[in-house]
Amino acid sequence: MSYSSQLLEQAVDAFSGLPGIGKKSALRLALHLLKQDKDQVLSSVLKPIEKMIREIKFCSSCHNLSDGDQCVICQQRGHKADKICVVESFRDVMAIEETDQYNGVYHVLGGVISPLDGISPEDLNIDTLVERAGLEHFTEVIMAISPTIEGETTIYYLSKRLKNCNVTISQLARGISFGGELEYADELTLGRSIITRTPYSISEI
Amino acid sequence: MSYSSQLLEQAVDAFSGLPGIGKKSALRLALHLLKQDKDQVLSSVLKPIEKMIREIKFCSSCHNLSDGDQCVICQQRGHKADKICVVESFRDVMAIEETDQYNGVYHVLGGVISPLDGISPEDLNIDTLVERAGLEHFTEVIMAISPTIEGETTIYYLSKRLKNCNVTISQLARGISFGGELEYADELTLGRSIITRTPYSISEI
Repeated sequence: MSYSSQLLEQAVDAFSGLPGIGKKSALRLALHLLKQDKDQVLSSVLKPIEKMIREIKFCSSCHNLSDGDQCVICQQRGHKADKICVVESFRDVMAIEETDQYNGVYHVLGGVISPLDGISPEDLNIDTLVERAGLEHFTEVIMAISPTIEGETTIYYLSKRLKNCNVTISQLARGISFGGELEYADELTLGRSIITRTPYSISEI
Repeated sequence: MSYSSQLLEQAVDAFSGLPGIGKKSALRLALHLLKQDKDQVLSSVLKPIEKMIREIKFCSSCHNLSDGDQCVICQQRGHKADKICVVESFRDVMAIEETDQYNGVYHVLGGVISPLDGISPEDLNIDTLVERAGLEHFTEVIMAISPTIEGETTIYYLSKRLKNCNVTISQLARGISFGGELEYADELTLGRSIITRTPYSISEI
């Protein structure tokens, strides 16, 4: 692409470094910004993004994204919750909140144990989880971690660390997806879902 | 979507106001920025974009985007060019430069005459075009304007304004696209391309 302006070219490069944005989309975005009123773009597009990058914090209890010292969920439910849901990242907190099926608090690990990627238990928010599970009035810790090899390893490690904490440890139910077709389910999932089949009851429907 | 942080929500709103970016992509972009080093993101992503918005100028000769008073094209070709190519926007300058088939200068109108959208000749960079065509050493003005009703109107208006300027006025060739299939060409284009057929010569291939 031949740019008549270096400023434009550098802005296009900045945009196209973002995930899912190629050179053509980046150019479109840059030209879109140039078509608007300068002050309007600075205050309504760039300022909120810069403010987020500069000011966002992590909740001191659960390590979720937060505007202040404690995140909204800990503020609202922290004093009465009896369950902790352990997740890999703040994206998972949002996904579970979307379901409207959980009213406890969360604990964001910041990843899973993965020796191949150089991530050991010390790199994750595990000590604070053990501390919370021991000190506070929690009765259950729910492992909402992806069922990958690294995820399973992490669940195993966490359950050993939480052994003396007097809490029930549970994990997300595994099986075939709702709306999924049996013939497309992978063998492992299908095989495990036959072994761990559940009693059928009409009231569930 | 349930955000635990207002800062995040506002940044997502800012991203999703850009063309072609929905809420999900916007969230992905915001979380991507949060995963990086704070200073790195500010200097390599936000700064070039802000710099472009604040500092970019329009070329004083051709109204193209420019870093300084004159754009690179006018600086390099301005003194010896004998052709002006009239285009709607700076995007069109880039498209024509990509073809590598033109070595004259440009004149960016900033749009086309469109009474329905409230765009009259006074809103476009037409006076400066007439001035340039009259004063400088130009022999040809090429109308590289989209063949829409508004575009045709603009070409007609410009050709009347340039009548006394002693320049040849030409327009982009119209016809069926290279690589296009005849059966999918629209009737008007196909009909006109029969009427305005050109002599076949082997040397063109």
